[in-house]
Amino acid sequence: MNARLRDVAEHAGVSVRTVSNVVNGFRYVAPDTRTRVQASIDELGYRPNLAARTLRHSRTGLIALVVPEIDSPYFAELAARTVRIAQHRGLTVLIDQTDGDFERERLLLHGKRGQLVDGVLFSPWAVAPADLAARTDTVPLVLLGEHDGPAPVDHVAIDNVAAAREATRHLLATGRRRIAVIGVQPRTLNASARQRLAGYRQELEAFGLAPVVDRERPVRRLHRSDGYQAMLELLDSETPDAVFCFTDQLALGAMRALAERGLSVPDDVAIVGFDDIEDGRYSVPALTTVSPDKDQIASLALDALAAQGKPPRSIIAPHELIVRATT
Amino acid sequence: MNARLRDVAEHAGVSVRTVSNVVNGFRYVAPDTRTRVQASIDELGYRPNLAARTLRHSRTGLIALVVPEIDSPYFAELAARTVRIAQHRGLTVLIDQTDGDFERERLLLHGKRGQLVDGVLFSPWAVAPADLAARTDTVPLVLLGEHDGPAPVDHVAIDNVAAAREATRHLLATGRRRIAVIGVQPRTLNASARQRLAGYRQELEAFGLAPVVDRERPVRRLHRSDGYQAMLELLDSETPDAVFCFTDQLALGAMRALAERGLSVPDDVAIVGFDDIEDGRYSVPALTTVSPDKDQIASLALDALAAQGKPPRSIIAPHELIVRATT
Repeated sequence: MNARLRDVAEHAGVSVRTVSNVVNGFRYVAPDTRTRVQASIDELGYRPNLAARTLRHSRTGLIALVVPEIDSPYFAELAARTVRIAQHRGLTVLIDQTDGDFERERLLLHGKRGQLVDGVLFSPWAVAPADLAARTDTVPLVLLGEHDGPAPVDHVAIDNVAAAREATRHLLATGRRRIAVIGVQPRTLNASARQRLAGYRQELEAFGLAPVVDRERPVRRLHRSDGYQAMLELLDSETPDAVFCFTDQLALGAMRALAERGLSVPDDVAIVGFDDIEDGRYSVPALTTVSPDKDQIASLALDALAAQGKPPRSIIAPHELIVRATT
Repeated sequence: MNARLRDVAEHAGVSVRTVSNVVNGFRYVAPDTRTRVQASIDELGYRPNLAARTLRHSRTGLIALVVPEIDSPYFAELAARTVRIAQHRGLTVLIDQTDGDFERERLLLHGKRGQLVDGVLFSPWAVAPADLAARTDTVPLVLLGEHDGPAPVDHVAIDNVAAAREATRHLLATGRRRIAVIGVQPRTLNASARQRLAGYRQELEAFGLAPVVDRERPVRRLHRSDGYQAMLELLDSETPDAVFCFTDQLALGAMRALAERGLSVPDDVAIVGFDDIEDGRYSVPALTTVSPDKDQIASLALDALAAQGKPPRSIIAPHELIVRATT
């Protein structure tokens, strides 16, 4: 018969919770206790049961986190935190990426993962609201990122309109008037870019400035190369005195283009990014950015997966504007 | 009865391979064909069988990629490529991170993943060779990164000694003589840092220069903050004319410290990094770096997992020095 958690606890003379803490790799277990529990685990041949108790109808103890690109720093940082927080809840996270491919995302909505996991956290890129509505899979699903209108499932996002207004207000407050944006996106399920654009426009208008279409630059993807290219195109029509980029990666690419054109940040052009990835903390100059609370996003998404409440909710995670040296 | 791959192929009038390509999300399927196959999949209610055929004794079609930190850009980029290449082989990759925690890594060697996956790709951080030798788990394991001496399992790495010699040679060839290194590491299973230090010393000596202990700077981790701190400490004792950093993250942190001290890169101090992460391609100035072939590392590691040959092999992936603007 296999040893149970309780057997290990009894053998080591600690609580079941302490054994669980050791098994789940929590950091805050005293080294002595950890050693004693580990010795008992080894002696009894205990193998942690991967099936979690935190999800209803849990079968595998696995959840999937599906993002467009795991090598995008924002998603990498969000994934790292999701894995850590899920571990603390006894869940194993299978991270997968779609490359933003429409068919791969569509397959996901129709049960490609259904046999394997107890729930899916999904950050969509290519699918549209209609694709979500046509979903046939029944495994619990929580969307990451903003979503327009009523959705059939819970989604977790920050208030992108408010965040974009704060970023724009900050640029206006530092005297900038020709403020461009980089990162306008086509219509898909993920509405973050649209809401950031809306927030930017609202704040300009509240200040008495009319939005200028030429200053709203679209990108195909959110890579540094897209930000670089969009910045060069922007400079070919006019030199703005500030650019609000919808991701830090776009901002870092834009900063590279400005450096190549001999323009100084922030003296000639101020830059605000979005995401607060580590790169921006160490760029020269360090990047002012909107910082979504990634721990809260991960935690709220895991809560939503466990609760699977009806009707579907729009769950808002906190954010803050972090002012550094580019503004 | 569940529809099989063959049923879908017959229904759509295509080969089984084409259906498999669509199911696995490969990019190079004609849109018309993809649509037709998808229609057949939907009509027949076919669900792809996740159990792969590429691993012996495959049960789950899952493999684990275990890295210290998924939000380290090198590991994020390696993970993204591993997922893509594995998908093409019909394998699903479960990405996990240990936070470089000794106990978590030790648990891994003793079967924490054993029930779940068909194989493990493991980039160790904290465990030592003795811990690997004491491994009790029997699931196929391939190590990523360099390993000293004979190992009980296959490992895939680049030739770190040769790569470090090339980086050092490049700095010598551009006239630098006071070349420091940042990234010296304690003794663990992962020997990459030791081999990079060895290569640096060998090249200095081949050039007739004696290594200077004060110029060999240790770090606790490989984050930008560690590179930043190490660079400040280096500058407190002397100003080197070049620094070879054992990762790009260390290099980007070091560049930040140089900027704060008013030193110019590369005029005052040349910098070479290691890993070729995207950040370094867009930093100002763009970072010269050793570029490991991450696609090859992922591909060779998956090959090794599938082959599980005896005796264990040391598998070398290619690398190249990419010269950019910091040297």
